[in-house]
Amino acid sequence: MSVKAFAPASIGNIGVGFDIMGLALEQPGDEVVVHQSTQPGIRITKMTGDQGKLPYETEKNTAGMAVLRLTEYLGATNIGIDIEVHKKLPLGSGMGSSAASAVAAVLAVNELLKAGLNKKQLLPFACAGEAVASGSLHADNVAPSLLGGIILIRDNHTYDIHRLHTPSGLYVAMVHPNIRILTSEARAILKDAVPMPQFVQQTANVASFVVGLQNNDFALIGRCLRDVVIEPQRAQLIPGFYDVQAAAMSAGALGCSISGAGPAIFALCEGSKTAEMVATEMQKVFIAQKIESNIYLSPVNETGAVIC
Amino acid sequence: MSVKAFAPASIGNIGVGFDIMGLALEQPGDEVVVHQSTQPGIRITKMTGDQGKLPYETEKNTAGMAVLRLTEYLGATNIGIDIEVHKKLPLGSGMGSSAASAVAAVLAVNELLKAGLNKKQLLPFACAGEAVASGSLHADNVAPSLLGGIILIRDNHTYDIHRLHTPSGLYVAMVHPNIRILTSEARAILKDAVPMPQFVQQTANVASFVVGLQNNDFALIGRCLRDVVIEPQRAQLIPGFYDVQAAAMSAGALGCSISGAGPAIFALCEGSKTAEMVATEMQKVFIAQKIESNIYLSPVNETGAVIC
Repeated sequence: MSVKAFAPASIGNIGVGFDIMGLALEQPGDEVVVHQSTQPGIRITKMTGDQGKLPYETEKNTAGMAVLRLTEYLGATNIGIDIEVHKKLPLGSGMGSSAASAVAAVLAVNELLKAGLNKKQLLPFACAGEAVASGSLHADNVAPSLLGGIILIRDNHTYDIHRLHTPSGLYVAMVHPNIRILTSEARAILKDAVPMPQFVQQTANVASFVVGLQNNDFALIGRCLRDVVIEPQRAQLIPGFYDVQAAAMSAGALGCSISGAGPAIFALCEGSKTAEMVATEMQKVFIAQKIESNIYLSPVNETGAVIC
Repeated sequence: MSVKAFAPASIGNIGVGFDIMGLALEQPGDEVVVHQSTQPGIRITKMTGDQGKLPYETEKNTAGMAVLRLTEYLGATNIGIDIEVHKKLPLGSGMGSSAASAVAAVLAVNELLKAGLNKKQLLPFACAGEAVASGSLHADNVAPSLLGGIILIRDNHTYDIHRLHTPSGLYVAMVHPNIRILTSEARAILKDAVPMPQFVQQTANVASFVVGLQNNDFALIGRCLRDVVIEPQRAQLIPGFYDVQAAAMSAGALGCSISGAGPAIFALCEGSKTAEMVATEMQKVFIAQKIESNIYLSPVNETGAVIC
């Protein structure tokens, strides 16, 4: 017996919500196929797509570790499961690639074993998987990829997460330049403290961002989408970041910042037509620099991961 | 002709929203009476109550400066106005005393001159008045005192402020120990940067606090009311602060922190009965220390300042 699941890309941080917010895209995303096997043990048997140097060792693979933790919890330690990971998300892109594989894996295994856990119950296992890649437990990609929507994480340890309202007509334009940034490197360059004025400004913006979403107030959403803490420190990792941002804003984006740890850059837009223009203008900056890139257009994915 | 206005006390910061949030109480508050005079000029003619060393010079008095700025804006520079300030709020209490006088003054003069400005239009003048006392422009007491409700300030310079939802049944218990803290002193002791982990925690709490209010989720409001940035630095200014906080929490408060720059301590509670018990228990800690104190109980004031 086999089950296939799809888990979408996600934007961690959403600019103003470092480590505490994320949202899901409709496409692209990773697919995981799990097969029940007569041979006990959890194995990664196949990987396709941009798997880079992803390890086949179960404990070192985000999908493998997530499934290990889930089957331990279920007491299904004698079970045999073969896992295929079909990477459609580029690694080290800031698009939540590790999270998507872990999410798709736990959702597929939950179905395969008829375990009956709901998505919120599956969250800790997907997080445990993603932590293998990121080095720490953060739900800001895992939670939106699994549950869909725009997710606010009050506390990672207690999975105190909250789904925010998605205004109708909110679209994402994303450009991913073909350069790789390791999340661990992008974390290492961050200063260990935030100056008080930026602290006040960022708290005001993140709290008001929630209000803007709630009230379908696109203008307010735009005013809040200004990361004065993390973006200035990470912009240097992405060639031409500020030009891309300026291009997005000129083309009508509400706001534009780094997706997760980058190098993908996202812009939130009102309406799909604006998003299309914004994506095109952002990509032009990379074309001018002779850096390969891909663009993605998507509304917020309200469903999250699904069994295919 | 005379007009009298009342402006209520307010809780700046509300724990997790340093410099960006405030809420209004129903009582106590300051009263300002303005009289039209045939003698041109803006004068403070009388002060009653806890006026301490408040200056009578118009430019140095929060009510006087607020009225000066308003009449300048209205082009009413030849007008004669005598101002009486009846202080019911203790000075240097953290209860928004300077803001209340400035707010009541502009509201009264707007009525006296039939200027027809709405409250949001009056906000900058009240803020200019309050800045005389605080040394900088902050709307976190002025805005709630004027408009009522729970107010989030995205930006002080553009008066980009947002009224948050007040859950039905939300009550405030407040204890004010009879010691004085100058806002300027309370600002001076703050470190100039916030460590990254506390930054992440506080942004998560303040954004989730907005969600908790919106969803009438008292448990979430409680989990969010934990100031890990400012409170630990200012607690030392209030004798027995942590005992007061522990007493409030034991008595059923959702959360408890310093009101504004202190020394007043507020607790948010579900229901007036709980608020009553919480206030009593908080006060006991000051009684044990032989420190005089007053307690206040109030729902959130949804109306703000009024003409009496």
